[in-house]
Amino acid sequence: MKHVAAAVALMTVSAATLAHSTTSPNGVRTLSPQGAIKVEGTWSLGVRAGDFVFVAGMQGVDPATNKLVPDPEGRVRQAFLNIKTIAQSEGATLKDCVRLTIYVNDLKTVVPLVEKVQAELWGGPPYPPRTMFEAKRLFDDDIIEIDSVFYSPVKK
Amino acid sequence: MKHVAAAVALMTVSAATLAHSTTSPNGVRTLSPQGAIKVEGTWSLGVRAGDFVFVAGMQGVDPATNKLVPDPEGRVRQAFLNIKTIAQSEGATLKDCVRLTIYVNDLKTVVPLVEKVQAELWGGPPYPPRTMFEAKRLFDDDIIEIDSVFYSPVKK
Amino acid sequence: MKHVAAAVALMTVSAATLAHSTTSPNGVRTLSPQGAIKVEGTWSLGVRAGDFVFVAGMQGVDPATNKLVPDPEGRVRQAFLNIKTIAQSEGATLKDCVRLTIYVNDLKTVVPLVEKVQAELWGGPPYPPRTMFEAKRLFDDDIIEIDSVFYSPVKK
Repeated sequence: MKHVAAAVALMTVSAATLAHSTTSPNGVRTLSPQGAIKVEGTWSLGVRAGDFVFVAGMQGVDPATNKLVPDPEGRVRQAFLNIKTIAQSEGATLKDCVRLTIYVNDLKTVVPLVEKVQAELWGGPPYPPRTMFEAKRLFDDDIIEIDSVFYSPVKK
Repeated sequence: MKHVAAAVALMTVSAATLAHSTTSPNGVRTLSPQGAIKVEGTWSLGVRAGDFVFVAGMQGVDPATNKLVPDPEGRVRQAFLNIKTIAQSEGATLKDCVRLTIYVNDLKTVVPLVEKVQAELWGGPPYPPRTMFEAKRLFDDDIIEIDSVFYSPVKK
Repeated sequence: MKHVAAAVALMTVSAATLAHSTTSPNGVRTLSPQGAIKVEGTWSLGVRAGDFVFVAGMQGVDPATNKLVPDPEGRVRQAFLNIKTIAQSEGATLKDCVRLTIYVNDLKTVVPLVEKVQAELWGGPPYPPRTMFEAKRLFDDDIIEIDSVFYSPVKK
């Protein structure tokens, strides 16, 4: 009976592990951390490959409702927090970000929000290298989408 | 005579190797695999650097004609296939992609094609992290260009 | 007295080192090389992470005046030179670039300048993989911004 219980426990763990990550032929591991937004479509939230963590373009979607945060500043903050959740699940802090590419609908109104939110979330310099410009249109006619890469060396 | 033949064979191999790749001071290797599209201008199809393969922005150019595939779905598929050719030449499958950045002229018409073609070529999840938005204009007023990075650890 | 001098010298060195780089929990090192442009806002010029150097989106800002170079060709050249300064400070040449993403305001007028300047600065092929397209708007209504990544293995 104990053996059965152990086997069931093992299967449950394996299933949970499978649900949360899968690994490619070359060792690219797909990430699906708790608390992250829901994915719909042919993409994933992020992957680990070697010492780097690549995160999908993140919008200001509230993981609790899977809807965009209504106010602009809150939405910008939420986009960064969604990134943070994924990076953190692989042992990276915002300070370990190596690259931010930020697509906005309007530089004049969104850049001040980005600067404010980054100062708040990073708590001061140094900040990551960044590229930011206006796209013609983002998904959902959104105001911001942020693409990012993190460094988190594999523990040896 | 045998020595000459051996030397000629060696030179042929070296010339072929040189034609197909060159290496930078730090070991960045330029890729030029068979079956890939032709490059015109100051760029290359891709490079290997350490365990990563970086691929140039790919359009739906048919390598047989060096012209854009006429129908939209075929063109989207061809863009992914052009990426696949380069990644595969360095031992990476589509599942080893760590990052896709997809620039389109129109989200409404092109995203459904991207979703359909990715499902077909990947054969199901997991898919790579992705960022996708509308650019103001792509080369040749094209409908899609795809930027990608792959993971393919050097065999030791 | 010698001890004091040594201590002062050490503090000076440490302060200088701190001014020029800081390192994240995971070992991401922020770059601030001599001769580079001045940063204003929540970003940095570049970082080293493992064997890779990530450079922020660079515009054609003259580091001597911190203003955009007036003529278009000079501005495109300056954008590449600003990248070169950062890459070089970590032991990478332009030939060690693994990825260029170039955002322009107008493909028709800017691409010829990019091609000319790259041929000049690289001195011939091979060139890095490149993606280039029109953004709706760049900072300062600029004509070009260039995002780049370099490979520069840590000396062991």
